[in-house]
Amino acid sequence: MAKTLNIDGKRLYASLAELGRIGAYTDENTGIVGVNRLALTAADGAGRRLVTKWFRAAGLRVTIDKIGNVFGRRPGRDDSLAPVMLGSHIDSVPTAGRFDGCLGVLGALEVVRVLNDAKAATRRPLVVAFFTDEEGCRFGTDMLGSAAATRRIPLERAYALKDRDGLTVKDELRKIGFLGGEPVGRLRPHAYLECHIEQGPLLRHKGLDCGVVMGVQAISWQELTIVGKSAHAGTTPMSFRRDAGLAAARLDVALREMTLSGRYGRDMRAAMGAINLRPNMVNVVPSRAVCTVDLRNPSDALMAKAEADFARLCKKIAKQDRVAISSRSTAKTPHVPFDASVQALIAAQADRLGLSHEPILSGAGHDAQEWSRVCKTAMVFVPGEYDGISHNPREFSTRKQCTDGVNVLLGAAQVLAEEA
Amino acid sequence: MAKTLNIDGKRLYASLAELGRIGAYTDENTGIVGVNRLALTAADGAGRRLVTKWFRAAGLRVTIDKIGNVFGRRPGRDDSLAPVMLGSHIDSVPTAGRFDGCLGVLGALEVVRVLNDAKAATRRPLVVAFFTDEEGCRFGTDMLGSAAATRRIPLERAYALKDRDGLTVKDELRKIGFLGGEPVGRLRPHAYLECHIEQGPLLRHKGLDCGVVMGVQAISWQELTIVGKSAHAGTTPMSFRRDAGLAAARLDVALREMTLSGRYGRDMRAAMGAINLRPNMVNVVPSRAVCTVDLRNPSDALMAKAEADFARLCKKIAKQDRVAISSRSTAKTPHVPFDASVQALIAAQADRLGLSHEPILSGAGHDAQEWSRVCKTAMVFVPGEYDGISHNPREFSTRKQCTDGVNVLLGAAQVLAEEA
Repeated sequence: MAKTLNIDGKRLYASLAELGRIGAYTDENTGIVGVNRLALTAADGAGRRLVTKWFRAAGLRVTIDKIGNVFGRRPGRDDSLAPVMLGSHIDSVPTAGRFDGCLGVLGALEVVRVLNDAKAATRRPLVVAFFTDEEGCRFGTDMLGSAAATRRIPLERAYALKDRDGLTVKDELRKIGFLGGEPVGRLRPHAYLECHIEQGPLLRHKGLDCGVVMGVQAISWQELTIVGKSAHAGTTPMSFRRDAGLAAARLDVALREMTLSGRYGRDMRAAMGAINLRPNMVNVVPSRAVCTVDLRNPSDALMAKAEADFARLCKKIAKQDRVAISSRSTAKTPHVPFDASVQALIAAQADRLGLSHEPILSGAGHDAQEWSRVCKTAMVFVPGEYDGISHNPREFSTRKQCTDGVNVLLGAAQVLAEEA
Repeated sequence: MAKTLNIDGKRLYASLAELGRIGAYTDENTGIVGVNRLALTAADGAGRRLVTKWFRAAGLRVTIDKIGNVFGRRPGRDDSLAPVMLGSHIDSVPTAGRFDGCLGVLGALEVVRVLNDAKAATRRPLVVAFFTDEEGCRFGTDMLGSAAATRRIPLERAYALKDRDGLTVKDELRKIGFLGGEPVGRLRPHAYLECHIEQGPLLRHKGLDCGVVMGVQAISWQELTIVGKSAHAGTTPMSFRRDAGLAAARLDVALREMTLSGRYGRDMRAAMGAINLRPNMVNVVPSRAVCTVDLRNPSDALMAKAEADFARLCKKIAKQDRVAISSRSTAKTPHVPFDASVQALIAAQADRLGLSHEPILSGAGHDAQEWSRVCKTAMVFVPGEYDGISHNPREFSTRKQCTDGVNVLLGAAQVLAEEA
C-alpha cells in the first residue's frame, strides 16, 4: 500500500487563484471577477506558460504534442511501464470562473508536488497533462486536444478548424508557441484520472464531499427550423395562422413533459436553450423560428427512443400548426461508461479519507471520455456552491471541497501507479 | 340623390403606381419592389410634395396644420357647412407595398377628380386629407397626426417624440418642409370616410367585393419579462430548473388555447410575436425571456376578461416554473365602434353598385378611429390578394378591387355631402 499523504490545500488554492488572474475581468453587472481564457488566445498562451513553468519547477519533463497538449512526466521506479495520467484543461469559456478544468490540472500538479515533498517514488511514471480547447467555444469542437490525441479526430481536420474570424487552430497554436512536435495518437496510459467540479447542484444539495463519476451521459443536440407564414396579428383570424413561434413553444412544453413522463428513464434531461423568431415583432405572427434542442440520457437506448418520439412529435405539431419543421443534428455523443474498477478505487479512497460520496453521472463532456477509449478511466467530482453554477464568474468551490477531491485523486493515483 | 358617377380606375391605379415609385426598393429575397416611406424622412417628404401637387392640380385649396397633416378643400354649394372629410395616410412601414394608406388618400383625390370632370358640385365642402405618421414605426406612436388633430395627443407631446437617433417630430417636420401653421384640434367635419385595404384574408377568402367596417377591435399589447435562473442543460436535474424560456412557451400555448376556448368570444385574437431569451445558447437553461403579447377583441368587456385571466395564468405559471413574471402595457386602445348610419350608407352604396359586401371588424388601427371621436365615421375595406398580406412588398389589391372600393367611397361621400 502507498504511503498516506495529504495534499497542501493552501498551496493548491493559491495556484488556482494565481492562474485565475490570467484572463481575469470584472463582470459589469455583478462586480465579480471572472476569467476569459478562450482557447489559443494570448490569455490561453499566458496561462499555458505559467502552468508549464510550474510543471518544470516540480521536476517534470515537459513535452508538447502536435495539437498543443502539454504533458509533464515524473519517472517511475519502473520507467518502462505505461504511466498513470492525471489531467484536464485550462482553456475556458468567455465568462468563466477559476475552477472548471484548472482544478484537475493544478490538482494533478499538487499530487506531484506532494509526492516530491515526501520524496515518494511510484512504480509507474506519472504524467500530468492539460489538453487543448476542451470547451470548444472558439473552434466549435469540444475536447479537441484529447480527441486528437486519442485519434477520434484526425490531426489535419483539427488543424483546419476555423474560428469566426477565419483563424485556424494550427496557425493559432503556432502564434502562442504551443505547436509541439510530439506525434499524437501514440500515448497509451495505464489509467487516466481526472478531478473536476461537478458543474451541477447534486453533490452540494445532498451534502456530499465528492462524487464518483460513473460516466458521461449521451448527448444529442438538434437545431430545428420551423417555417410558417408571417401574418398581421390584428387582422388574421386564428384559423388562418401558421405560427412558427407557437410550434416552437409547443415543442418546448412537450420536451418538459417527456422528461416528466418516466418513459425515457428518471434521468432524461431536455432544454430548448435558444429560440430565434422572425420577424420577432409584437404584432406579426412569426413566420420562422430557429430553436435548439439539447437532450441528455444515461442510456443510449432511451436516448434513441426519446429522439424518435420527439421526431414524431415534430411531425404531429407541424401538421397541427401547418408549419414545416426540419431538424439538423449539431452534436451527438453516446453514453460513455467509466471503468468500474477505477470507480471502486476512487470510492475506497474517499472512504479511507472519511469523505462522503455517491456515484454520479456527468452531465457535461470531459477530456476523460476521450481517454476512456484508450485506457481505464474515471473521474472525481467536487461539489460547487450556488447550485454548482459554472461557466459563470460565480462558479465557486471552497478550499475544503477542492482539497478533499484532490486528496482522493492523490490516493487513487498512488494505488494505480503501484499496479503491475 | 347625387348624380351616378364612376371613378376612373385606370387613373387611380396609375396614381398609386406613381406614388409607389417614391421610396421604392427591391426586396433582396424575392426581387419584388417594395416601398419605404417611413414618416418624416426625405422619401416621405417627396411623397407628400407629389400628392400636394396633385391636390392643387385638382383645384383643392391646400392647408397644412401644425402636426403636418395636409388638407385639400373643395368648396361646397353652402360653403359655411362642415365639410365631409375623406382621408388616410401616405407614410409607410419600412417594408411596405403601395396600397396601405395610399389607397384612401389617392381614392379620395380620385373622388374629387371625378366630381371635377363631371362639374358636379356638392352641398357641403369636401376635404381630402393625409395624416402624419399613421404607422408609428419611427416615433413609436401610431395615428400620430390624426390623434393630434383630434386632441387625443397634445401637440407639444407629439412634437417632442424622438426616433432612435434622437431626432424629434418637430425638427423632422420642419426639415421636410411640412411644419404647417394651421392650428390643430379645431376641425370638426360633418362626417369622415376612409377607404383602406383590409390587411387580412377574410374578404378575399369569402369572395366579397368590399367590407363595411363596423369598427376597430380593442387592442392590448404587453411586454412580459420572465426571470428564471441560468443553468447547465447537461448537469442540472429537471427539478432544479427555473426555465424562463419554458414559461414563455407555456404562455404562448395558453394564449392559443384561450382563443379557442370561446370564453372570450369567437373573435379573440392573440399572438406572442417576439421572444428574446438570455443567454440563448443550446446548452444553457434560459435565465430570462422577454416576450410580447398582442391581444385583440371586438368587445372591451371580453378583452378585460381575457387580460385578467391571462394575468392569473402568468401568476400560476410563475409559481409552477419558479420564475418571476412582470408585465408592462405597451399599447392599449378600447374597441372603437363606427357610426351605424354611415355603415348603412356604405352598404347601400355597395348594393347600388352590385357589389357583394359584409360587415367586417378592423383588426388594425386606422386614422378613422381618431376622427370617430369628433364626427360620424366609417370605413370601406378593399380585399387583398395572398391572404391580404400587408406591411410587405407582396401586398396587392387588383385594379378592380381598388376601383370597387373607391366607387363606394364616392357614392357615400356624395350622399353625405348633400346632407343638411
